[in-house]
Parts: sequence; structure tokens; C-alpha cells
Amino acid sequence: VTALPPGFAAAGIHCGIKSSRTKLDLGLLAAAAPRPAAAVFTRNLLLGAHVTVSREQLARSKGMVRAVLVNSGNANCATGAAGIADAHRIIRHTAELLGCAPEHVLFWSTGVIGARLPVDTIADGLPSLVSSLHEDGADDFARAIMTTDTRPKVHTARSGAARITGIAKGAGMVHPDMATMLGFLLTDALVPDPAAALRDVAARTFHCLSIDGDTSPNDAVLLWSSGAVDSAGALPELRAAGRSLCRAIAADGEGASRLVTIVVRGAPDEGAAARVGRAIATSPLVKTAIFGRDPNWGRIVAAAGRSGVALVTERMRLAIGGAVVFSEGRPHPAAEASAHRHLAESEEVLLELDLALGAGSAECWTCDLTPGYVEINASYRS
Amino acid sequence: VTALPPGFAAAGIHCGIKSSRTKLDLGLLAAAAPRPAAAVFTRNLLLGAHVTVSREQLARSKGMVRAVLVNSGNANCATGAAGIADAHRIIRHTAELLGCAPEHVLFWSTGVIGARLPVDTIADGLPSLVSSLHEDGADDFARAIMTTDTRPKVHTARSGAARITGIAKGAGMVHPDMATMLGFLLTDALVPDPAAALRDVAARTFHCLSIDGDTSPNDAVLLWSSGAVDSAGALPELRAAGRSLCRAIAADGEGASRLVTIVVRGAPDEGAAARVGRAIATSPLVKTAIFGRDPNWGRIVAAAGRSGVALVTERMRLAIGGAVVFSEGRPHPAAEASAHRHLAESEEVLLELDLALGAGSAECWTCDLTPGYVEINASYRS
Repeated sequence: VTALPPGFAAAGIHCGIKSSRTKLDLGLLAAAAPRPAAAVFTRNLLLGAHVTVSREQLARSKGMVRAVLVNSGNANCATGAAGIADAHRIIRHTAELLGCAPEHVLFWSTGVIGARLPVDTIADGLPSLVSSLHEDGADDFARAIMTTDTRPKVHTARSGAARITGIAKGAGMVHPDMATMLGFLLTDALVPDPAAALRDVAARTFHCLSIDGDTSPNDAVLLWSSGAVDSAGALPELRAAGRSLCRAIAADGEGASRLVTIVVRGAPDEGAAARVGRAIATSPLVKTAIFGRDPNWGRIVAAAGRSGVALVTERMRLAIGGAVVFSEGRPHPAAEASAHRHLAESEEVLLELDLALGAGSAECWTCDLTPGYVEINASYRS
Repeated sequence: VTALPPGFAAAGIHCGIKSSRTKLDLGLLAAAAPRPAAAVFTRNLLLGAHVTVSREQLARSKGMVRAVLVNSGNANCATGAAGIADAHRIIRHTAELLGCAPEHVLFWSTGVIGARLPVDTIADGLPSLVSSLHEDGADDFARAIMTTDTRPKVHTARSGAARITGIAKGAGMVHPDMATMLGFLLTDALVPDPAAALRDVAARTFHCLSIDGDTSPNDAVLLWSSGAVDSAGALPELRAAGRSLCRAIAADGEGASRLVTIVVRGAPDEGAAARVGRAIATSPLVKTAIFGRDPNWGRIVAAAGRSGVALVTERMRLAIGGAVVFSEGRPHPAAEASAHRHLAESEEVLLELDLALGAGSAECWTCDLTPGYVEINASYRS
């Protein structure tokens, strides 16, 4: 059972958005009373209704959130003014059941774009969802927000006396600018400036994650703190929670057979390191080579070479699973057997690139590109 | 037989870089005497030796080119100072055989990264290559520069009394910033400023082409003019030649089953139109949907939404094969049957997106993303 920080409860049910009765499709997170939260949203200009509505709600409530409702299976995106009205109707209904003002209820959606939300189906499910809120409900909630995910993503940690629970979903349309990803970081730690803390965490974690280079109109991450425990912000543990969820999303990337961690060191600064790491993480040629268990250093170096960072190939040092396959401007064929073994045998592939230009570093995550990715996305209407 | 403009000759042979004796791997283009040329090269910072050397040669010769030698099968990239010396040795040898100064000979390479060039193999093949130069040699040359291409790419046209012959190769690692693509535009038209003309053509054609979003260290396009015919620059016909070669490369993209043409209109300016087109052309989700014959307007609109162009989704109008599937901020499900038929039955898929913001337009080309792409790149060491 995934524990929630004291003061939070969760639930997840099947209300009927998804046809399969075994798949949960409506989830709820609730605090005992409105508590401080901050959110980051997709930078895509095609926006799901929930992004527009959540920004209004958070402005009106000054970031005080009582509950977050999430449906999966329908993104309520490209649904125009009707979609916004649908979202508000569900929010009002949820607020009534919880006995709070509507501005304290967020409502997020993920799933198929362009179809009207089945408002009656969701409304019919709300009473039983609210009545099943429970301190042990995190796992049901994590399952209720899944779309093409094959498994729920949760993370729990302690920061001194405080607890942190992270929950996320995402498997495709995932990119540094955020994607079909929803993330929740819940804590009872007192976080003095949730918006600043979330920007810090997102820059280091959610913005360093790519499945396929596509971004979605619906992505959102929420940091939410009950503030019961004064533990100086818990920033390191929040970063670790974000990192853990990103790794879980990359490992469960559509069709993935390998989690790929890219560590870039020696960049002029952190931003440059992240740009190089993301260029590698989004390269279809790197990702297909990893699927082929091919220690193809040339594609990795070439991807870094198009990152926009002024790197010097003669200084670069690239290791695959610890085996240095490229340095001083040339390959080391003798190291390839060891690198190949790493690719063949490790579920997590580690690419380490030292640019030898400065002190900036970053970690990025992706997965390999497989025929399974193509099959899933040739047939799934996202 | 693909005709060359008067004053040019070409040849292609198998010299032994590729193991299969039926595959040509060494090609030569020659003018009767040094003639004006201009080149654009990859923006990748990992550079094939030929990019470095060609820039020097073109500076020294003031753009006067007598011959271009091309080998396929070995990119002479990440080979350090030795690779540069290898290139110079082959250039000297070729210049001797042709009886010209070395600075008038360019030598381009495409193929596997990180292996030393088989200099002796190439040198041994040079005499028979030079002696087989012929005005009808364009088709042999076009085959000699192929790597994962399944067919040669040639284009011939007239501009008044002048002729234009375009030859290119490329199937993967292809992106707007240029990739494992080599292109040649030969003409006997007098082109007053070849560099300016090539920049114009590349911006409208080669920089609007993407197979997989990866760029290669070796890409280069040459515009080369004998200048015998004064036809005011032949710019429209040169643009058409670039467009034709780009379409041929996209249609032969690794694993492709469909050529995809993306026409963006109504953008604030041409650059913005190209950015939107390229965002769509590089979206794995759009490309897998096309493979799945799914008129998935949501993914196309979402890709445009992450292009960085300040578009207004309510104004956008998207047609697939002429069927308007999205406008006024919402989808038109009734049009999807027609769009699906287009995807299922047309070898060329046409996506037309009107942003209704201005007068800028652009055309971009890509192909669908198929299991075949993954298979090719999981096993091929580029």
C-alpha cells in the first residue's frame, strides 16, 4: 500500500469513461482543508480545457487546493467553450459533495483529444468516488489516471519527520516541455514557496524526460503541501520524488524495453547540459540503436552535435555502461564488447557524456524506440 | 538515361568499400574546367572530414570546382587528423588523374561513422573511375552515392535554353538542419551568385525535409554551374529541382510507406510557416498515425502547438487529403471517413494547415514512421 502524507486521502473508481470495467478511470485526491499548491502546465498552445480552468482556479484560490479530480480516457481538449463549461459543471458538483467552494477543486483530464467529456457518466460516479476517499487510496488513484501506461507510478519518501508521496502517469507524447503526463507531489512538509520549489523540481526532472519528443496539450504537475511539518522545504526529497517518477515513466514508455539514463557532465552550465542530454534523449537513431543493443557512439555524439551547445568533439568522452567508447575525437572499438554486454543485459542503460568544458551537469531519461511504439501509436487514437 | 547539362560528365563504379560487388560505392562528377559552385553543409558540430576539407578547398579555389568525388559506405567522420589526411591524399590522387590543381577537387563521404577510410581501395579504383567519366554517367553516379536508399534520386529540367540536373541521396538521419543527405544541383545556366541562390533553394527545400529529426555530420548540397547559358539564374527551376529531390528522399525514407507533404499557409511569415511545418514533420505521433492510416487531427494540431509559433487554435483549419477535419477550435468527425480513405489509398499524404494569421506559407516533406524504420536502424550501424 502506498502511504499518503497525513492530511491527504485518495480514491479511484471505474465510472464508465473507459469501456473495460476492470480499468479505473476517475480518481480523486483530497486534503482535509484547502492547502497550498502550485502547478506547472504544458507549453503546448493547444490546451486541454483543464489547463485553462486550473489556471483560473489557482489564481482565484491563491493556490489553496482542497481536491484534485482526474479522469482518464478523455482529454477534454479541442472541445472549445463547451469543454470549459463541462469542466466547470463537474467541478461544481465535486465541490458540493466535498462541501467546499468550487475554486478549491481542480479537475484534470487525460486521454483522447477532441471528444466531448461524458459529463453525466462522470457526475454519476462522483458520489461513490467521494465516499471512497481513504488514506490508503493512493494506489487506486494511481491506477485511475493511467492511459497507455502498463503500470502505476508511485514514489514515497521521508524528509525528516515529513512524508512525500509522488504519483504520476505518462507513457507517450512525453517531452521536456511536458506531455501526456500528469504528476502529483504531495507532502506534509511546510514548503514556503511551492511555485519556486516546483519550478526547481520540474527543471531538474519533468523537463528532462522524453519518450518521443511530442508534447501534449494536457500535461500538468502539482506540488501540494499540507504544511503540517516544518522541515525546511524538503527540496532534495521533492527533487528525488520527481526523478523517481520520471524514471518510472521512461521505463514504462510506450513499447519500451529499456530505461535510458543520460548523464551529461562538464557542460558550460546546467542549461547546456540539459540541452545536450535532451538532444540525445530525443534522437530516434540513438533510441533505435539501443533497441538493437548496438553501442552506436556515433549516433550519440552526432545527437550531441546538433544540440545547439558549442561543444568540442575532441574533448568529449562518452561511456556506455561505464565503457569509454569515444574520447579524444575517436572511437575505441575495444570497449564496444563491454558496452554491448551492458545494452544486452541491463534493464537500465547508462550513457555518460563528459564535455570537458565546464561544471554544468544534468540527468535526462528516455527509453528505446521499438516496433512496439509504432504499433501502439499506429492504432491508438490519442 | 538521366541527362547532364552540357559541360558535365559523371561516373560510378564499385571499388570495394561495400562488400557487395553489385553495389556501386565510388562516384565522380566533373566539369570540363573549374566552374563556379557553392555548397551548404550540415550544422551538426560533429563534422565529417569532408566538410572541413571542402570548406578549405572552396575558400582556396574561390568556389571554382573541377570535380566532386563521392564515396559511400564510409563517412570518414570521427577519424580525427588521420581522416583529414586521408581525404587530402585521395584529393591529390584524383587531381593528378584529372590534370588539375587539388583545390579544384571536392571529396565527399557518406556511410558508417568512426572507421578509417579504406584509402588504398579508393585509390586503386580511381583510374577506372576517371576513365569512365561520360555525359551519360549520371545514373551510375546517383547509384554510387546511395547508402540505405532503396532507389537513386535524380531530377532533370530546363530553364529556357539551360538544363538542370539534380542528384541526391538520403534515407535516414535527415532533418531540416541537413543530414545523411548529399545533394547536387548542376546547371549550365549562368548563376550570378551561386551561394545566394543555394541559400534560397535550401531554405525552401532541403531545410524543410525531415525523415527522423536526426541530423548527420556529413550532409552537404552543392550548386554547380557551367554558366554557358545566360538564363537569369534559373532560380525557380533550381527551387523545383530541390523540391523534387526532397520529395524523392522523403518517399524513400527508411521504412516509409507514405510520402507526407505538409503545406502550411496563413502564417505570420515564411519562417514561422516552416517552423510549424517542421514541428509536424518531426512528430513521431503524427508519423505513426499516418502509418496507421488514422486521420488523427489532434496529434497534428498538438504538434503545431509546440512549434513555438504563437498560433490561435480557434483560427486553425486543417485538411487531410482535402477533407477539413479541424476548424474553429473543434474537430469535424464527419470528414474523417474521407480523410481515412486518403490515408489508406494515396501514396502521397497531403496535410494542409491554414493558421489564418498572415500571408506566410511553406511546404515540408516527411514520411510515415513504421516498424521498418525501427528494424533498419536497430541493425544498421550508421
